[in-house]
Amino acid sequence: MDHSKRAVVLVSGGLDSATCLAIAKSKGYELHAMSFDYGQRHRAELQAAERVSDAFGVVDHKVVKLDMGTIGGSALTDGDIAVPEAPSEGIPVTYVPARNTVFLALALGWAEVLDADRIFIGVNAVDYSGYPDCRPEFISAFEKVANLATKKGVEQHNLHIETPLIDLTKAEIIKQGITLGVDYGLTVSCYQADDDGRACGRCDSCRLRREGFEAAGVADPTRYLSV
Amino acid sequence: MDHSKRAVVLVSGGLDSATCLAIAKSKGYELHAMSFDYGQRHRAELQAAERVSDAFGVVDHKVVKLDMGTIGGSALTDGDIAVPEAPSEGIPVTYVPARNTVFLALALGWAEVLDADRIFIGVNAVDYSGYPDCRPEFISAFEKVANLATKKGVEQHNLHIETPLIDLTKAEIIKQGITLGVDYGLTVSCYQADDDGRACGRCDSCRLRREGFEAAGVADPTRYLSV
Repeated sequence: MDHSKRAVVLVSGGLDSATCLAIAKSKGYELHAMSFDYGQRHRAELQAAERVSDAFGVVDHKVVKLDMGTIGGSALTDGDIAVPEAPSEGIPVTYVPARNTVFLALALGWAEVLDADRIFIGVNAVDYSGYPDCRPEFISAFEKVANLATKKGVEQHNLHIETPLIDLTKAEIIKQGITLGVDYGLTVSCYQADDDGRACGRCDSCRLRREGFEAAGVADPTRYLSV
Repeated sequence: MDHSKRAVVLVSGGLDSATCLAIAKSKGYELHAMSFDYGQRHRAELQAAERVSDAFGVVDHKVVKLDMGTIGGSALTDGDIAVPEAPSEGIPVTYVPARNTVFLALALGWAEVLDADRIFIGVNAVDYSGYPDCRPEFISAFEKVANLATKKGVEQHNLHIETPLIDLTKAEIIKQGITLGVDYGLTVSCYQADDDGRACGRCDSCRLRREGFEAAGVADPTRYLSV
């Protein structure tokens, strides 16, 4: 069987990963969506991930349970650390230690089982420059690990980590997604959305998303708790 | 606080990781043991990991739940794939896709939270040459990822992955462990041990372990189901 167009796509349920999924589909990949139930505060994301995966007709959507809360160290998994509601200097407290390394490692395991040679991740180095594991040099280093760590990588040297959003602004991401038919009303970006997926409108992620829609000149479909 | 002698040590409950823990202790590190409940068949390992961690007076022992069985692809997590009882050519079916990448990624996250700059992993490139993620080039590539992925790595460039067993034979590992006071009776290596920790005596892991004790000239303390 030809698996050369088979891809694992990390789908968080947010705006970026939905766009990333749309891009992978537009390139003709057979889509295998992967999400993580990792103790995040914003669990409405997982329902959003399911809606987005369904909308793009993925072959399967795997949700891996992973207790990152036991490690702690982030406002997203530790109830004792507050989600900030103003921009901060340096690496923000919403950074989950080694999260993208963990997510890519699990995607790599699944890619090997599927015989897929592409992993798509919607990281972005522009708006999220405070997260070290969203930078091109990190992705490039992980790609080397991927090709050394696995049977497939060792035999074929063909595993690639695709980051189609890495150099785009939020507005550019939104414009591209609209062109590819993404319904952003299905997505949830808020770090502290309620169970119904309504956004706080105040956290860093809400702010970046709202500014993105404004800059793109696109109506913001986000459902906010208060406006 | 000086955290320069703080280490995360991956402890599976097997012979190698017990020796690795003993070596980390002998070097004066404050020990933080980490194990994974990842859907492995050989769950008796987790009890062994607890016993070994207790024996070496670790500061804490974290067991992270992680459902790698949902990914499948290995005899160790997939009940439909039999554990082989004879040596095989190439990469064995007991290889869990990307396992060491996943384990090191989670250890990295914890190391960052602890402000530890060492991660010890008892990989061995001699006896397990069939596992791609036990080779020095994999470890070296992951160390680069570690220093790019994390706040600590980016700021201090000081994260190191320590693999004190990587070039040793099983007999050399056992001799070193005995010198450092490891009680191998506490450890479980078998891929299909029973709930009480008794070993099958027939799988690859049992065979390597038994040959190691023979070559080291040390009495084998393993409890076997049948001898």
